[in-house]
Amino acid sequence: MSTKKTLRVGLIGYGFMARTHTNAYKRVSDFFPELENKPVLATVCGRNEERVKAFAEQWDYESYETDWRTVIAREDIDAIDICTPNNMHAEIAIAAAEAGKMVLCEKPLARSVAESQPMVDAIEKAGVRNTVWYNYRRVPSVTLAKQLIDSGKLGRIFHYRANFLQDWTINSDLPQGGEALWRLDAAAAGSGVTGDLLAHCIDTAMWLNGGIKDVSAMTETFIKERVHQATGEVQKVTIDDACLFHCHFNNGSLGLFESTRYARGHKALYTFEINGEHASIRWDLHDLNRLEYFDHRDESLVRGWRSIHVTDGDMPYMDKWWVPGLSIGYEHTFVHQVADFLKSIEAGTPCSPTFKEAMETQKVCEAVLDSASSRSWKDTGL
Amino acid sequence: MSTKKTLRVGLIGYGFMARTHTNAYKRVSDFFPELENKPVLATVCGRNEERVKAFAEQWDYESYETDWRTVIAREDIDAIDICTPNNMHAEIAIAAAEAGKMVLCEKPLARSVAESQPMVDAIEKAGVRNTVWYNYRRVPSVTLAKQLIDSGKLGRIFHYRANFLQDWTINSDLPQGGEALWRLDAAAAGSGVTGDLLAHCIDTAMWLNGGIKDVSAMTETFIKERVHQATGEVQKVTIDDACLFHCHFNNGSLGLFESTRYARGHKALYTFEINGEHASIRWDLHDLNRLEYFDHRDESLVRGWRSIHVTDGDMPYMDKWWVPGLSIGYEHTFVHQVADFLKSIEAGTPCSPTFKEAMETQKVCEAVLDSASSRSWKDTGL
Amino acid sequence: MSTKKTLRVGLIGYGFMARTHTNAYKRVSDFFPELENKPVLATVCGRNEERVKAFAEQWDYESYETDWRTVIAREDIDAIDICTPNNMHAEIAIAAAEAGKMVLCEKPLARSVAESQPMVDAIEKAGVRNTVWYNYRRVPSVTLAKQLIDSGKLGRIFHYRANFLQDWTINSDLPQGGEALWRLDAAAAGSGVTGDLLAHCIDTAMWLNGGIKDVSAMTETFIKERVHQATGEVQKVTIDDACLFHCHFNNGSLGLFESTRYARGHKALYTFEINGEHASIRWDLHDLNRLEYFDHRDESLVRGWRSIHVTDGDMPYMDKWWVPGLSIGYEHTFVHQVADFLKSIEAGTPCSPTFKEAMETQKVCEAVLDSASSRSWKDTGL
Amino acid sequence: MSTKKTLRVGLIGYGFMARTHTNAYKRVSDFFPELENKPVLATVCGRNEERVKAFAEQWDYESYETDWRTVIAREDIDAIDICTPNNMHAEIAIAAAEAGKMVLCEKPLARSVAESQPMVDAIEKAGVRNTVWYNYRRVPSVTLAKQLIDSGKLGRIFHYRANFLQDWTINSDLPQGGEALWRLDAAAAGSGVTGDLLAHCIDTAMWLNGGIKDVSAMTETFIKERVHQATGEVQKVTIDDACLFHCHFNNGSLGLFESTRYARGHKALYTFEINGEHASIRWDLHDLNRLEYFDHRDESLVRGWRSIHVTDGDMPYMDKWWVPGLSIGYEHTFVHQVADFLKSIEAGTPCSPTFKEAMETQKVCEAVLDSASSRSWKDTGL
Repeated sequence: MSTKKTLRVGLIGYGFMARTHTNAYKRVSDFFPELENKPVLATVCGRNEERVKAFAEQWDYESYETDWRTVIAREDIDAIDICTPNNMHAEIAIAAAEAGKMVLCEKPLARSVAESQPMVDAIEKAGVRNTVWYNYRRVPSVTLAKQLIDSGKLGRIFHYRANFLQDWTINSDLPQGGEALWRLDAAAAGSGVTGDLLAHCIDTAMWLNGGIKDVSAMTETFIKERVHQATGEVQKVTIDDACLFHCHFNNGSLGLFESTRYARGHKALYTFEINGEHASIRWDLHDLNRLEYFDHRDESLVRGWRSIHVTDGDMPYMDKWWVPGLSIGYEHTFVHQVADFLKSIEAGTPCSPTFKEAMETQKVCEAVLDSASSRSWKDTGL
Repeated sequence: MSTKKTLRVGLIGYGFMARTHTNAYKRVSDFFPELENKPVLATVCGRNEERVKAFAEQWDYESYETDWRTVIAREDIDAIDICTPNNMHAEIAIAAAEAGKMVLCEKPLARSVAESQPMVDAIEKAGVRNTVWYNYRRVPSVTLAKQLIDSGKLGRIFHYRANFLQDWTINSDLPQGGEALWRLDAAAAGSGVTGDLLAHCIDTAMWLNGGIKDVSAMTETFIKERVHQATGEVQKVTIDDACLFHCHFNNGSLGLFESTRYARGHKALYTFEINGEHASIRWDLHDLNRLEYFDHRDESLVRGWRSIHVTDGDMPYMDKWWVPGLSIGYEHTFVHQVADFLKSIEAGTPCSPTFKEAMETQKVCEAVLDSASSRSWKDTGL
Repeated sequence: MSTKKTLRVGLIGYGFMARTHTNAYKRVSDFFPELENKPVLATVCGRNEERVKAFAEQWDYESYETDWRTVIAREDIDAIDICTPNNMHAEIAIAAAEAGKMVLCEKPLARSVAESQPMVDAIEKAGVRNTVWYNYRRVPSVTLAKQLIDSGKLGRIFHYRANFLQDWTINSDLPQGGEALWRLDAAAAGSGVTGDLLAHCIDTAMWLNGGIKDVSAMTETFIKERVHQATGEVQKVTIDDACLFHCHFNNGSLGLFESTRYARGHKALYTFEINGEHASIRWDLHDLNRLEYFDHRDESLVRGWRSIHVTDGDMPYMDKWWVPGLSIGYEHTFVHQVADFLKSIEAGTPCSPTFKEAMETQKVCEAVLDSASSRSWKDTGL
Repeated sequence: MSTKKTLRVGLIGYGFMARTHTNAYKRVSDFFPELENKPVLATVCGRNEERVKAFAEQWDYESYETDWRTVIAREDIDAIDICTPNNMHAEIAIAAAEAGKMVLCEKPLARSVAESQPMVDAIEKAGVRNTVWYNYRRVPSVTLAKQLIDSGKLGRIFHYRANFLQDWTINSDLPQGGEALWRLDAAAAGSGVTGDLLAHCIDTAMWLNGGIKDVSAMTETFIKERVHQATGEVQKVTIDDACLFHCHFNNGSLGLFESTRYARGHKALYTFEINGEHASIRWDLHDLNRLEYFDHRDESLVRGWRSIHVTDGDMPYMDKWWVPGLSIGYEHTFVHQVADFLKSIEAGTPCSPTFKEAMETQKVCEAVLDSASSRSWKDTGL
């Protein structure tokens, strides 16, 4: 009985991120009824017909395709959503922009700055709507952190630190490459944890605390050889298993970042903390409904870190969901990004992070990798 | 493109619980693709036409109704889902059963044992599928607790304690009654925190630890008079604001329960802990992706409470969602209950808690209220 | 080189509490240099000469005795400190008071109200200084809780809950009675967890929240028979292994208390929480340098439970110790009580809890045990 | 009544660390009765006679001195304990060693490697007993971490990270230098947070995880000028306010370290975490009775971080104190080091960390500062 306008989506890819995006498109209208546009799952595209057909059936896509060029060529498609391995982002995004489609691209934008620049150029030349799925900005507790920082509560910032710790590649029997494990193959992914995990940390950090000026980094590959799924042969591992760096932000504060897939005990421990003159904030993805806040201006006898359960109706996005005390989860961040994308269409404004903004994260990632390989400080150019 | 059989749902009510159930029906097929049946939102029913129409539009119901008898009379409806205030549960459920519909009823089953018994009788006479929405059983961490207890890891049980603490009625300006606040009106709700909150604690407790034998309780109404929304007049508050009780379980362990809406600082702090001879478990709704576990058989130097992040694929229900470390939330418990209801249809088994099982919780609630008013121990009859 | 006056202490007993008290006497002058009186370890008394001699040597007592009447008879002794099993408290305290000695008595005051009353009478008749070692009042974080409550920050109180959970008697092979295990023998201890653990909870509760009016309790003895150390025979266990009760405070708030030695995973988990109209406080002995505080008047976006690390110089007692962030431990509570006892001498004021105040806790304990055995509510008379 | 041998201590300094050491000497015999030697507080030395006299009286020193050379010259003194500002360590330690005294030196060993080397040479030439007060090694939970790592439970180590965060110098009105604030004066302290805080982190790290091979660091001085207490004039701040570095350990693992006095909300937050192939450990000074442990070999359904309350009698040092669940604090670490020093005398073994071992920490600190000033990687020579 809906009277909304439709936004017909063509999604390229059928892996993990394809599920999160698809779910977001299906749910957004239920929880954001004020939006004028409603996404329609027009088509999903994948190389393996059997698998893409099953995906389409499970998620109620109107159709499926096996060649992404066909999707872009279809006149009924308004927006292209790119969920492929990183090495395909540039070609698809540029073609989609040239065809005048809106483009939503999974992060990181591309494998390198060199690959990103033509994407930004194409988007800007075509003047099409665009966004990159750095979804963690839209965890309500992270959005709240942004509000608190922007309000000036923290005062002058001294420190920012973040890490993203996982442990799923410790087993040396784990193969690399292929459809399932392309994140372990630098040719497909561009890099290891730097593009996969640190990119999230860097995006959030620059959103909250401004540009990163220069970096000093180190990387490590703990397991040097693995069987490659595509060839079945033992091959050199080309990605970074761990990456650590410190940096200056343009505002004079110091940054410390670490990411690894070898931190036993941590599944997806993305945490950040920011220390200001008056107040500090810390956050942890494992308990994403909470934000920790410390304010030195509190009366001294009752001064302490506050554990804020970010579920009340006055918290970012939370009027859309349940009632105080009742949690939301990981998938909601994607619903929020679709909602904001649809709002930006109605408002005629950009939907952050745009391709251009995401390229800045790319520049930091590249400076980090350059610093690690040259064992020297590198400017980011930001 | 779906080839599933349909299960056409008629939902009575358009309040908070109607949203949670509706969302569950819409999502279940996406995440449980193996199910043969797919719920269809056939109709939603509410007394206020404007509001029910808006609800139907927001959630994509095929139609709406304003008289629940019409819904039951419709031949195209397979299942009736009851989300009304508690005082309507019995009449609707009995009529639905007599019409041969499957019945899903929001908890508590009814306002009293006397009101519940005919419901159970009608269900059993009609032989229709039925379930009551004690959704917290299907938080994955709670289901995991059940598995661990059933596996015998805890040994002989000594203690069970639970509380459900909220703080939303402390303000004496809050009115009682009416559509929004019927939970504060004993005529509509049957009781206050006992039926609303303790009923959850009791359902979980008896599921995990067996029947409760006898109880000793106290209740309190802190704010004696409030404006009634229906009449606009200051009237006596008829509900219990707080309820505390201790009890014996049939297995010889001791129980301690507390519930209140006057615990400043707690939004929906449902917690339970169970202590066995060898191991203990505790849980907290505010951080529902975690379960705490202590095993005394651990090597003494590394013995401690374990904080289990219940997000891995081998955890209950979690193979359906994301990857290790990525959280789910409150609403997923309802999706799980729909999935289990659909599975039970395919398997020809009951879907716990059935009406009959939910009446046992009703018996404990009633013994608790009787004990409090008579200041004496009461047997539950279980 | 000290110019302080001396307070010569005769300590009766050489068990666990004798160690904590002795340490307190030895340390107080180092950390409270402003006190005019300095405790001197004049003598320690125990029945077993070999053991009391070893104790005296380890702790630098000037002498030792084997008959407590001799200690009381010694003119050089100013204060008698009673660390014996509970069944000896009354006789020693009364004799000490009659001899004009100051009396410091380990908690609980005695085994019963009937035994306590003559102690209070003797103390009052003699007009001697006295105190009972409910040491947990003087954890800095607990004293801070008292300050916050007295300041009115919490407003009207609705709820108080406390528990004291241990797990050291779960093993059925553990014997009862004798010197080491007199706490498992009702003849020596008076009761089980009620006098040992709940007495602490009740003392703190009434100090923080006023008198307890009436109670409804239950007790349980999980293991019915144990070998008695004195006789070597299997005998009936006479103590309560667990005790739970709810109650009304005189201020209209509700109380909930639980204590057990069968809560696997808890060593000495004494916790309390108090919920007021505006603010709430909670505390946990396992992390005694912290106090949790929630204030609803905080700005809603940054409202949450605050974890206060009670180590700054403006916190109770903490100017005496180290610097912010550096913890103190269990033993410091006894040092604080000695310091306050010495201060009270200088100020001519009572040192809480006095014998009279401690008898109120005794009254509640007795009402609790009476309620449990009669399965009915009991007034405390407070 | 003691029959122990005496160890007569001459302590140089009367500041904060003098208190912690003095307390340790006074308490050790009470809690470690098996030791053959008993420290005697022979003398304390300070330049300000009034203050040193007061200190001596408060702590029961037999005498006081105002010239440290006199202390070293006294034949009745067995051991010299150095608690002065860092710039005095070398001269006193060398003189004490040459006089044949045992030497206990507060950390860091000195201001530089150049200043440390002659100290080590003098100690070794004289063959005197020596130790440096890196007290955090002897927090029972940290000693437990050492045991667990040495037992091989963690397997191959991938990551080590530590930080030491404080916030006490954020106020720009805080002066620098003088007796109280010499830690803010590089001439007296050698460096800022690097020698004061990171030195602790480095000592623990190399004790637990072996030598650090090379480092890449950055430092920052946030407040550039402060009033100097000695001169009353606004002068350039010469210390590092913050220091961050990453490094390789010799075992191939990666290290990440951060220290600052500008992390609002942290009083003395010294934390470390170590990630191995099979298990991980983390620790936090604010809650020093706890150790967190994760073991991937646990059964998957109950796998999680364990919070070990390190208070049982089988934990390092804990048989000396109270009973399970009862905490100890900061000061106990010094008691443990005195006990171990006395034991090492009896056993004829070194007491770690010796001067020689502490110089290794000095080498890392110096490499860190060199790396920061040159913006390049530096080898430590270890």
